[in-house]
Amino acid sequence: MDELEIDAVAEVQLDDPVLVEGLPGVGHVGKLAVDHLLEELEGESTLVRRLYSREFPPQVTVEDGISELTCAEIHAVSVPEGRDLLVLTGDHQAQTNDGHYLLTTAFLDVAEEFGASEAFALGGVPTGELIDEYAVVGAVGNESLRDDLEEVGVEFREDEPAGGIVGISGLLLGLGERRGFDVACLMGETSGYLVDPKSARAVLEVLEELLAFDLDYETLDERADEMEDVIGKIQEMEQQQQQQQMPTDDDLRYIG
Amino acid sequence: MDELEIDAVAEVQLDDPVLVEGLPGVGHVGKLAVDHLLEELEGESTLVRRLYSREFPPQVTVEDGISELTCAEIHAVSVPEGRDLLVLTGDHQAQTNDGHYLLTTAFLDVAEEFGASEAFALGGVPTGELIDEYAVVGAVGNESLRDDLEEVGVEFREDEPAGGIVGISGLLLGLGERRGFDVACLMGETSGYLVDPKSARAVLEVLEELLAFDLDYETLDERADEMEDVIGKIQEMEQQQQQQQMPTDDDLRYIG
Amino acid sequence: MDELEIDAVAEVQLDDPVLVEGLPGVGHVGKLAVDHLLEELEGESTLVRRLYSREFPPQVTVEDGISELTCAEIHAVSVPEGRDLLVLTGDHQAQTNDGHYLLTTAFLDVAEEFGASEAFALGGVPTGELIDEYAVVGAVGNESLRDDLEEVGVEFREDEPAGGIVGISGLLLGLGERRGFDVACLMGETSGYLVDPKSARAVLEVLEELLAFDLDYETLDERADEMEDVIGKIQEMEQQQQQQQMPTDDDLRYIG
Amino acid sequence: MDELEIDAVAEVQLDDPVLVEGLPGVGHVGKLAVDHLLEELEGESTLVRRLYSREFPPQVTVEDGISELTCAEIHAVSVPEGRDLLVLTGDHQAQTNDGHYLLTTAFLDVAEEFGASEAFALGGVPTGELIDEYAVVGAVGNESLRDDLEEVGVEFREDEPAGGIVGISGLLLGLGERRGFDVACLMGETSGYLVDPKSARAVLEVLEELLAFDLDYETLDERADEMEDVIGKIQEMEQQQQQQQMPTDDDLRYIG
Repeated sequence: MDELEIDAVAEVQLDDPVLVEGLPGVGHVGKLAVDHLLEELEGESTLVRRLYSREFPPQVTVEDGISELTCAEIHAVSVPEGRDLLVLTGDHQAQTNDGHYLLTTAFLDVAEEFGASEAFALGGVPTGELIDEYAVVGAVGNESLRDDLEEVGVEFREDEPAGGIVGISGLLLGLGERRGFDVACLMGETSGYLVDPKSARAVLEVLEELLAFDLDYETLDERADEMEDVIGKIQEMEQQQQQQQMPTDDDLRYIG
Repeated sequence: MDELEIDAVAEVQLDDPVLVEGLPGVGHVGKLAVDHLLEELEGESTLVRRLYSREFPPQVTVEDGISELTCAEIHAVSVPEGRDLLVLTGDHQAQTNDGHYLLTTAFLDVAEEFGASEAFALGGVPTGELIDEYAVVGAVGNESLRDDLEEVGVEFREDEPAGGIVGISGLLLGLGERRGFDVACLMGETSGYLVDPKSARAVLEVLEELLAFDLDYETLDERADEMEDVIGKIQEMEQQQQQQQMPTDDDLRYIG
Repeated sequence: MDELEIDAVAEVQLDDPVLVEGLPGVGHVGKLAVDHLLEELEGESTLVRRLYSREFPPQVTVEDGISELTCAEIHAVSVPEGRDLLVLTGDHQAQTNDGHYLLTTAFLDVAEEFGASEAFALGGVPTGELIDEYAVVGAVGNESLRDDLEEVGVEFREDEPAGGIVGISGLLLGLGERRGFDVACLMGETSGYLVDPKSARAVLEVLEELLAFDLDYETLDERADEMEDVIGKIQEMEQQQQQQQMPTDDDLRYIG
Repeated sequence: MDELEIDAVAEVQLDDPVLVEGLPGVGHVGKLAVDHLLEELEGESTLVRRLYSREFPPQVTVEDGISELTCAEIHAVSVPEGRDLLVLTGDHQAQTNDGHYLLTTAFLDVAEEFGASEAFALGGVPTGELIDEYAVVGAVGNESLRDDLEEVGVEFREDEPAGGIVGISGLLLGLGERRGFDVACLMGETSGYLVDPKSARAVLEVLEELLAFDLDYETLDERADEMEDVIGKIQEMEQQQQQQQMPTDDDLRYIG
């Protein structure tokens, strides 16, 4: 196998589409958002490309005994009343620093091939504590994009995210900007300890306004309710521990 | 040395052979199975290829003072009453993610060169506890292969193996399927803590029925008895500890 | 993206310039020194090159919501009364051994392109204890450079730094010397536990004498005062602990 | 810099020379042996090649303020009464698996260029306990070399070294044999805990007989005496601890 192999699964004509990326990351926010988007707009979407790479982990997933080689998928979504979308999803980031550059370049190549010149990277920004009001924090490749995002409620903060943005989301900003894409990263606040469907909803609601599509959130809210139950149990456990000893954030860190 | 060097040790004419892989992995099930297969069918087998690679660890094994550079070996086995086999064995997986892709591609190249279009990857699936009845769990590259395997007792389970299949066995499925091979992985249940000759026998018995060869299991059963003794001693030790403190799985983890 | 991409941001004519490198390292001495140099000589400096590489971590920094892809920058500084400078700064070393060779080679290529044949790598040398008098320790690519440096107070010691010089500073010496550059490394003594603006000042004062430029140290001294406060608090904590238990260096190690 | 750069420092005509390798490893036995060999035969030796590589750590050593880029050196030694030697020394193994293959191939290339078709890799084999009688254990690329080595006291053992031979010594056997070199590895027994000049002497004495050169051991014996003092102190400390608690091998492991 070559370092990168792109399978053209289908060809679809899109009108000025926007690349929307949601790979695994903080709180799985980006992946949850993109998976929900594809689920809700299933009728309008077509799998157009599969990207296989030696930069992905050497493994297959198995469902009902059928194996699938690790890959990233790009779906074309023709939204009747809004902008066309190219939705990027997958189960893995690259496995090396170098690989992140290689894969992000490939994703931008495919986006360009379909006529895209705009990209949104979706993800989470960790706050370290449980959240009531889910703000969406933004980062953009260049100043000109900031006003539009602020209008729909995206917050721009002086030093956030403090450690920058790492991985494919970060490079979509960095490499996208270098190629002349209009790129933005939308990061839902999330504790960083748990899979966070509420944060994913907050990000999607911003995207809905920007790109004029329309989603139902029932299934995502159900997942959020399940997580609420988990959080409730953790808080109970915490309170019990608190009566015995000082609790720490580490108790939560590896859950979800 | 090049990234990959394939030594053609011998040429053998095979009729529609099946690639059978057994490299080190969970419970050494795959390697035990393949080594036993080669031992029992020694009269009918010929070493045909040695594969050296910079992706293997930089080392030699030494036996009676003679060194052997790390490599993988492919043996041709002409089974009189059954299917011809290409048996892949070796002491190491690749040392990098990238290397797994490179080596698996090379193995499939050799298999194709000998006319193979079918492959079985043998391995173990960890259960976390000692086992009485050794089931064999299957995974296939495409649906059409499932019925034949279920007929000989292979089990297909909704979400197993949970973490997918990693390494060369996983990629034989993933890359083999992409090249049009009929590929399956046969995984013997095993605790995951110990070298498991019984699990290897369970896997080989499935393969015997599928490919119509016939093995004697005396030496493998002897190894299984030796392991039983080891397990007996561990259980004794555990019981002694249990009277003093709570035992943990970690007591077993690194044995074997 | 290629393994290395060099953006020519501006062209400037320099007269026999000297490359001055200050990337992150022990006590951040080199980076503090170079950043202060660029701040103070802002009126005379021009950003001439940005170097992007797959050897840098795959990330963007974000300031006020605007992302910047990780890179190294080279600034041309035309010092009226002294030598022209090419100042190399950035937020990261390379991420692999191999990458250090690649990036250092690129930095020397750019320096040569601007006519440089001399280089100073700035850094810190860890002493393991808090420091009163900041000596500057030197290392040179060849003997002929030693006298000039000793004249301005640089100390050459039999076995220091004991572990050699690692990373891009080390390779600027090693690879620079191989290409015929006159290369020296100036290392300010520093505890190794804390960001050390005083050590950076000691290094800059040596460089001032050597290259005949003239800096104001007000802002650097302010940062030094801030660090003094931090050190004061640590020492207080230490004394309190000492009354309870033996203190260790580890208490300080990860601060700053 | 390229992945590999070989500097031809001098040209020397050798008659059927033998490559002798001694890079850092178990007990530093190989490196001690080769450094002593070069010291004692200094009058007859010439540095002929320096090998620089991106596979070496990115660093310089510094002695008296002068930096030296990490490299491996090959010295030609014209022994009047014995076989000519090509002596390979350096401060580092390769930093990656892949790099070991690359560097060993380069070393064999240089050896071939000087007409060598024979190689000895020198090293230590860890026994886990302090040693009185220093046996030298052998491994050879092919059977035909065993008799000559057994005649001068080298021991060949069924399963030793148990884990095979790792690194450049191992690959000199493995890759050397593949290229038609007569290759052997001579491993002095050593505890594995300490730098071991006595083990180095044992290995050199075997080599003296095989290749007919003649060394004085005064300086090596002095280093051995220094180590004896260290061992004496450790044993004292051990005995003191033993009166307090059970001693462990770990007390020794990281010394030297």
